[in-house]
Amino acid sequence: MHTKEHKGSKDYIFGFFLLDDNDRKTKMEKNVLIQINEMMSVFFRILKKNGFSDQKAEKIAEIFTTNSLEGVYTHGVNRFSRFVRNIRDGYIKPDAEPSLVHRIGSIEQWDGNLGPGPLNAVFATERAIELADIKGIGLVAIANTNHWMRAGYYGWQAARKGYVFIGWTNTIANMPAWGAKDVHLGNNPVIIAVPFEKEAIVLDFAMTQFSYGKIEKYESEGKQLPFPGGFNKAGKMTTDPGEILETWRALPIGYWKGAGLSLLLDILATVLSGGLSTCEITKRKVEYGLSQVFIAINIKQLHNSPTIENAIQQIINDLHSSIPESKETTIRYPGEKVLKIKEESVKKGIPVNKRIWEEILSLCSE
Amino acid sequence: MHTKEHKGSKDYIFGFFLLDDNDRKTKMEKNVLIQINEMMSVFFRILKKNGFSDQKAEKIAEIFTTNSLEGVYTHGVNRFSRFVRNIRDGYIKPDAEPSLVHRIGSIEQWDGNLGPGPLNAVFATERAIELADIKGIGLVAIANTNHWMRAGYYGWQAARKGYVFIGWTNTIANMPAWGAKDVHLGNNPVIIAVPFEKEAIVLDFAMTQFSYGKIEKYESEGKQLPFPGGFNKAGKMTTDPGEILETWRALPIGYWKGAGLSLLLDILATVLSGGLSTCEITKRKVEYGLSQVFIAINIKQLHNSPTIENAIQQIINDLHSSIPESKETTIRYPGEKVLKIKEESVKKGIPVNKRIWEEILSLCSE
Repeated sequence: MHTKEHKGSKDYIFGFFLLDDNDRKTKMEKNVLIQINEMMSVFFRILKKNGFSDQKAEKIAEIFTTNSLEGVYTHGVNRFSRFVRNIRDGYIKPDAEPSLVHRIGSIEQWDGNLGPGPLNAVFATERAIELADIKGIGLVAIANTNHWMRAGYYGWQAARKGYVFIGWTNTIANMPAWGAKDVHLGNNPVIIAVPFEKEAIVLDFAMTQFSYGKIEKYESEGKQLPFPGGFNKAGKMTTDPGEILETWRALPIGYWKGAGLSLLLDILATVLSGGLSTCEITKRKVEYGLSQVFIAINIKQLHNSPTIENAIQQIINDLHSSIPESKETTIRYPGEKVLKIKEESVKKGIPVNKRIWEEILSLCSE
Repeated sequence: MHTKEHKGSKDYIFGFFLLDDNDRKTKMEKNVLIQINEMMSVFFRILKKNGFSDQKAEKIAEIFTTNSLEGVYTHGVNRFSRFVRNIRDGYIKPDAEPSLVHRIGSIEQWDGNLGPGPLNAVFATERAIELADIKGIGLVAIANTNHWMRAGYYGWQAARKGYVFIGWTNTIANMPAWGAKDVHLGNNPVIIAVPFEKEAIVLDFAMTQFSYGKIEKYESEGKQLPFPGGFNKAGKMTTDPGEILETWRALPIGYWKGAGLSLLLDILATVLSGGLSTCEITKRKVEYGLSQVFIAINIKQLHNSPTIENAIQQIINDLHSSIPESKETTIRYPGEKVLKIKEESVKKGIPVNKRIWEEILSLCSE
């Protein structure tokens, strides 16, 4: 396998490609507005050239486009070129499909066979839903899969169909244990989603307080982080992005609590899937062959099913009745902004960094 | 019901009895060492006087003693008097037992009937384990239950038997939404436990970065918090415990992320149990009638079962190989310290604040 990407780069030092070159490029450059259909069809053509069937190319194109449409550019359009590179480098197998390893009651263990992370994740989410239909709850754990891009996609997928969804993935090491100077934990994103108003409440969060991409963005703009986001050389917490990029000691959410949660999420993903743990993935230098968990719950079969919508509405009303700290503050539930971003992009097109879009277009002719 | 406790007190203002008077009393006073059997038998006698059967009194005495033995005094011996007061005030029904409301596949919904939280929680954990034995995974949600004291107890209970365990509870509102000045979210403790070396790895964490008890302790000792733990009047993050006690704006773990997680945990507990949400509990002024979720997973039935112990050991070895930030730092997994504390208390006795112990002893003769 081809590993030129990481040699001697900062990425390599702190955790192997958390940053995408394309995220860096967005800093000083102009955006173009790309219409949904155009983005889909460009992605589709490139994927077709790289070994995907029509059906798979279409689904992956839709996932990358939706993630961009809903404002998660870092795991949408900005990451598309790298996804294609990972296929060309052999880390992602375009024709691989997940295979069932073991079934016990409401649990299924699958092997992702190094197929495309987003397709494996869509499959595992659907399979968890099918199990939930029969057994109330379905847990699908998948080994040897790949980066699923945006965790939220699968949360929305299940919640829009009326299911509660909980999922998480492990990653390559990119965060220190609490009290440690070097990285041994993943940022292990978690997704929790609940149906709400024909859409969803979706919490999509990783264990680092700020992604390295965000820290670099603040640095390039000469700004301080709004809240402490890591440690400086003296071991003090800091809002200075430059100081954090010097130590690569990003802050876990909740300090020791997020570090602990990262460890447990990795243990659970590894144990439940029978796949690789963060420390094993980290030995590979390149992040592939991840372990993931997908849990769906069929709340339509609960005794209180008719009252659930009202109960959630009441909780959200209560949240919205909070006294904001200033006139400029809006108190929102997780995922509330997504629909507004989507609406705007549907009208105007998806804002994409010009150079990133040109790079993607060049993949059409390669 | 008797509500004199909260009138006009600080507790009432910020979130209704998060602090126990006994936690405050521990500040400047001396400890006595109480042997396990003595503590158990004192608790047992008092519980018997307050309407519990032999069997229930014995189990509750064991839970409060174990929590103390394992170092969680705030949810052990320090809270015992208050538990008894809550029974006398009618919030906890000593003879109530949980009743099955609905069963669908691997999910069961129970009504806690306002029984003692710890007994309901032990029951729900056992029931989740029984479901997991048949169906791989068992989810038990319980409505109208009461404070379970220490979340960790149920994690250890399941993990020592070889099961993965995930559980959480909602609480009365005691934490602001992100960007809000008033409290609308609970601190909603979560427990995740995994069997390890005949014991367990147990992560037991609430959504506030520091409990109010801890913040008050720092204030009384004239110390700053080791890390920012809340907001001051000017809306700035602060390590000054006095400033936080002035605003009651405690910091959610991971800032907006922990606030979001608190909301989702409350929604899930409410939806899955069909019970009360944080905003409904908060209307009652006194924290009773909570909603809780208990999930057990039978990892002995997984295809990779024989390799699980090694996989976890490898993850822990990797964690322990972290480079500590200083010579004084030890990198630990969640729960690692518990066994050491227990060992010491078994040898020497459980350290208890003298006045708290005297207060408990006075309950024997009431």
